[in-house]
Amino acid sequence: MAAALSSSNHCCSKSPAYSSSSSSSIGFNQSLKNVQFSVISRKKLGSKNVSLQSKCTPLSNAILMQDGALPTKVPTTSETPLKKSKEVLSPITSPEENKAPIISDVNNSKSTVSITVVGASGDLAKKKIFPALFALYYEDCLPEHFTIFGYARSKMSDAELRDMVSRTLTCRIDKRENCGEKMEQFLQRCFYHSGQYDSEDNFTELNKKLKEHEGGRIANRLFYLSIPPNIFVAAVKCASRSASASNGWTRVIVEKPFGRDSESSAALTTSLKQYLEEDQIFRIDHYLGKELVENLSVLRFSNLIFEPLWSRQYIRNVQLIFSEDFGTEGRGGYFDHYGIIRDIMQNHLLQILALFAMETPVSLDAEDIRNEKVKVLRSMKPIRADDVVIGQYKSDTRGGVSYPGYTDDTTVPKNSLTPTFAAAALFIDNARWDGVPFLMKAGKALHNKTAEIRVQFRHVPGNLYNRNFGTDLDRATNELVIRVQPDEAIYLKINNKVPGLGMRLDRSNLNLLYKARYSKEIPDAYERLLLDAVEGERRLFIRSDELDAAWKLFTPVLKELEENKIIPEYYPYGSRGPVGAHYLAARYNVKWGDLGVDE
Amino acid sequence: MAAALSSSNHCCSKSPAYSSSSSSSIGFNQSLKNVQFSVISRKKLGSKNVSLQSKCTPLSNAILMQDGALPTKVPTTSETPLKKSKEVLSPITSPEENKAPIISDVNNSKSTVSITVVGASGDLAKKKIFPALFALYYEDCLPEHFTIFGYARSKMSDAELRDMVSRTLTCRIDKRENCGEKMEQFLQRCFYHSGQYDSEDNFTELNKKLKEHEGGRIANRLFYLSIPPNIFVAAVKCASRSASASNGWTRVIVEKPFGRDSESSAALTTSLKQYLEEDQIFRIDHYLGKELVENLSVLRFSNLIFEPLWSRQYIRNVQLIFSEDFGTEGRGGYFDHYGIIRDIMQNHLLQILALFAMETPVSLDAEDIRNEKVKVLRSMKPIRADDVVIGQYKSDTRGGVSYPGYTDDTTVPKNSLTPTFAAAALFIDNARWDGVPFLMKAGKALHNKTAEIRVQFRHVPGNLYNRNFGTDLDRATNELVIRVQPDEAIYLKINNKVPGLGMRLDRSNLNLLYKARYSKEIPDAYERLLLDAVEGERRLFIRSDELDAAWKLFTPVLKELEENKIIPEYYPYGSRGPVGAHYLAARYNVKWGDLGVDE
Repeated sequence: MAAALSSSNHCCSKSPAYSSSSSSSIGFNQSLKNVQFSVISRKKLGSKNVSLQSKCTPLSNAILMQDGALPTKVPTTSETPLKKSKEVLSPITSPEENKAPIISDVNNSKSTVSITVVGASGDLAKKKIFPALFALYYEDCLPEHFTIFGYARSKMSDAELRDMVSRTLTCRIDKRENCGEKMEQFLQRCFYHSGQYDSEDNFTELNKKLKEHEGGRIANRLFYLSIPPNIFVAAVKCASRSASASNGWTRVIVEKPFGRDSESSAALTTSLKQYLEEDQIFRIDHYLGKELVENLSVLRFSNLIFEPLWSRQYIRNVQLIFSEDFGTEGRGGYFDHYGIIRDIMQNHLLQILALFAMETPVSLDAEDIRNEKVKVLRSMKPIRADDVVIGQYKSDTRGGVSYPGYTDDTTVPKNSLTPTFAAAALFIDNARWDGVPFLMKAGKALHNKTAEIRVQFRHVPGNLYNRNFGTDLDRATNELVIRVQPDEAIYLKINNKVPGLGMRLDRSNLNLLYKARYSKEIPDAYERLLLDAVEGERRLFIRSDELDAAWKLFTPVLKELEENKIIPEYYPYGSRGPVGAHYLAARYNVKWGDLGVDE
Repeated sequence: MAAALSSSNHCCSKSPAYSSSSSSSIGFNQSLKNVQFSVISRKKLGSKNVSLQSKCTPLSNAILMQDGALPTKVPTTSETPLKKSKEVLSPITSPEENKAPIISDVNNSKSTVSITVVGASGDLAKKKIFPALFALYYEDCLPEHFTIFGYARSKMSDAELRDMVSRTLTCRIDKRENCGEKMEQFLQRCFYHSGQYDSEDNFTELNKKLKEHEGGRIANRLFYLSIPPNIFVAAVKCASRSASASNGWTRVIVEKPFGRDSESSAALTTSLKQYLEEDQIFRIDHYLGKELVENLSVLRFSNLIFEPLWSRQYIRNVQLIFSEDFGTEGRGGYFDHYGIIRDIMQNHLLQILALFAMETPVSLDAEDIRNEKVKVLRSMKPIRADDVVIGQYKSDTRGGVSYPGYTDDTTVPKNSLTPTFAAAALFIDNARWDGVPFLMKAGKALHNKTAEIRVQFRHVPGNLYNRNFGTDLDRATNELVIRVQPDEAIYLKINNKVPGLGMRLDRSNLNLLYKARYSKEIPDAYERLLLDAVEGERRLFIRSDELDAAWKLFTPVLKELEENKIIPEYYPYGSRGPVGAHYLAARYNVKWGDLGVDE
């Protein structure tokens, strides 16, 4: 029934702004060999005329690999790429022009990429990072020459690392051919180096090993910091000083938490910037890598039918809902220090909100999108304590099974007031969204596991069918649901005549269930984000000013809650959460869409 | 997932403007017994305050049974209902007031309805009318006291009629209980009278029989004229003069053809009006009784998301498509005299167009809806011959099977130029639709059997994803498809990101397939229309001025085609029709949606 609209059908075709059927990628790639170190200003060539296709095959996306913001003035040839490590960076003319792009094509056979997973023995590394790297390799999305290094304090041999990694690797459901063979090849590219996170000496040793593997090629290096926040800066310092790429790019992926509030976040950013340029920092928010979050912009900007609807004129409220059906389960130590607002709302849900609400960007380029997102965040009022409800789950027994409360977790202080649930109302003070409540809700140990965006539309003015709806007019409004997980789906609730001789209306769904429509397995968010980091695509990473703006919204209310030791509303493990969330919604004439009778 | 929004869940709850949960129908019905002959002006009571629920159970919809247009001044009591037969109609004050409504509740135990199928031995009667009447009976939608009479020229006993009728009756798939018993009860209400269609004597005999069955109750009579057009007027004259109800209403259902052009149609109307008031004439267009055509207004007017989209600003073109996968097959005699334009376009497709394009009516009342429809028709320019393509199917052999051409039908003249296919471009000259092509296409002996409405939306202005669509921008636009038959469905084509690491877009459907969503069998269009005629609901019947306006659009081009003996474009039996239809569409930058690659 449906056909692909893009001519590009390679698994890893990326960077939409550049993909088009009108360019012959082979011809272009060949010519690129001759201009390998030429710096081409895309803007000067005109993005309308030059169409590049970024693929996961060698030699295709030199220009996309540029580091830095869009250049205002760039040299046309350069024998040696600019080194981005701050210590050796030599400004050419102005600060603006510091950011002239470097061509160091990761897919060029003369270049190589080393990916160092710092904190290689941790849970995230084992469960997400190595499997994602393998998936990219399996799909031919990694460059020809690449090396993966595990770095951690524990002593381990390369063989032991490979054994550890191999236990979590799986092959794509939709193509299992050569899986064992591919795994073996992948593991042969994995190495291990044991070292302290704050030891320049240990990073110098790593540097030496990396150099050996790079074998004189242009060396690009990606560090994935999968380590606790208190050692972020030390590790960045060591990596930057002792293990930066000497002639390629150096990039660092950092995971949340990015501080606990505006001040600590700003301090972290300042510290990082002692050693890294803004464009070397890849702050990951893995929700931005989720398929339906990626699709949000496609839905909005490539479907005319949504264009007139996307504003206060038609949208009554927007709901961003996250729920987990399990608690901290013995791992509450980290969580207790942050709580659900910092863990889910201030980053994941707020990022989705910004993507949802932003104005049309000039292009799909990272900086254009991030510029629009930061405008949304800066148009928002800091959240009032009145507009936040917090909760904490307590133990419950159902069907003979006893479920522990949050403070039953031995890693959590008995008197902890940390919220495991929160609901908040946010407002965007701009022309498009003035007065439209954006409601967020996030919680652990709830009755289900879901992440979704719900857009509730206004009532039909002068509805001819009003009397068919009885008294509950809310149930007669349209709703667009984008279910991010699980069972990815998009559906639009419409009113429809129930077939038959009478005139009864009901609400039916116009449905797009991904697993029914697409047989392909949906890649994990980490695959997309790692690939983007390798390719230098920053669209899905968070810029410093976005982070600042996000903290500005949440810091006052977090302080108020904590300073006043506000007691959370207790809700039973496995329940639908505190009733306070309903009162909050009711204050803005909203009903939570996920708790409706027809869900 | 979905719940009924109306409190009314009786199978036959009808008349949306009146159904509401806020009135107690029992209380109201009881009070009606006392005002049985009172004429109540609905407008005066105020339709917002009085909520009646029309059901298929006795005693519920007295007010809905009124005949005539909305009264401007009405008596409050009247011992004898006004007789509508023109000869005995005595005006009270002014012509306007001639149309004072009569209360003669078909569901009142003191009243009865006699339904006479004139032409009872014909195909339509056997295949559609009797089965629809039985379905209504089976669903308890017919009044307590009713009688069905078959009337035709052939000699037949009541038993023979019952035998003939019984052979086509089936029970609802979704409730088969007591089916045999119900059939037997139904057949006991069926009688036969043999007579000439133009014999007042024979109708006087019928009248006598009807009276016997009416047993002194208030007698309402419905005549269904399922006879050739040349004897319409004679039969109407006889029925009106000799078999009109003496103290209830008399209504006549007539089937197309309503003339062959403006003149003959006007003559027919004039003739009918010698014997009938406008409000006694029920011109059936069975397409208006189809479930998804009924749903068209619900979709439009009860879903906010469609409200901003429904105009030239967002809609690029609208397509109304009808195709049959068989030819005349030995029954071309009638068809050859009319052709596909008169048989399908001028009525069925044009009626759907008018419903689709009309402005929001004041209410869902029949007159309000028909007022809006006629405004659409009157805003249209007569169709230019240039904007019409005609075709005729020729024989074809495929897979060893030979399919006959139209003129191979022995009932068709060998040199017939009658079109079996036509495509036309129509335009509505009003603020909402100026410049939007409405394309119609109808044909016999095509590759498939379908009836559908396709709404193609405009291109996304400044589409960020343009280059993902390659050169065929048309394929990237949204399309709403309302499939009337077979396999009723509504779907909305949207652009979506193909899951995966790349950024490929495709067109997916937001889907509502009726058979997947609703387990209930969808009633045949004739059931709805017969019930409406019994209940006096005129929303789905065609008013004289609508008919006039429809003929005004098509008469000039029909004359031109016939006077100039335009030769149709021949297309093979079972093909997709003449290529001329594509050229016509292309002239207006349209591609037929049903012939796209992704269908």
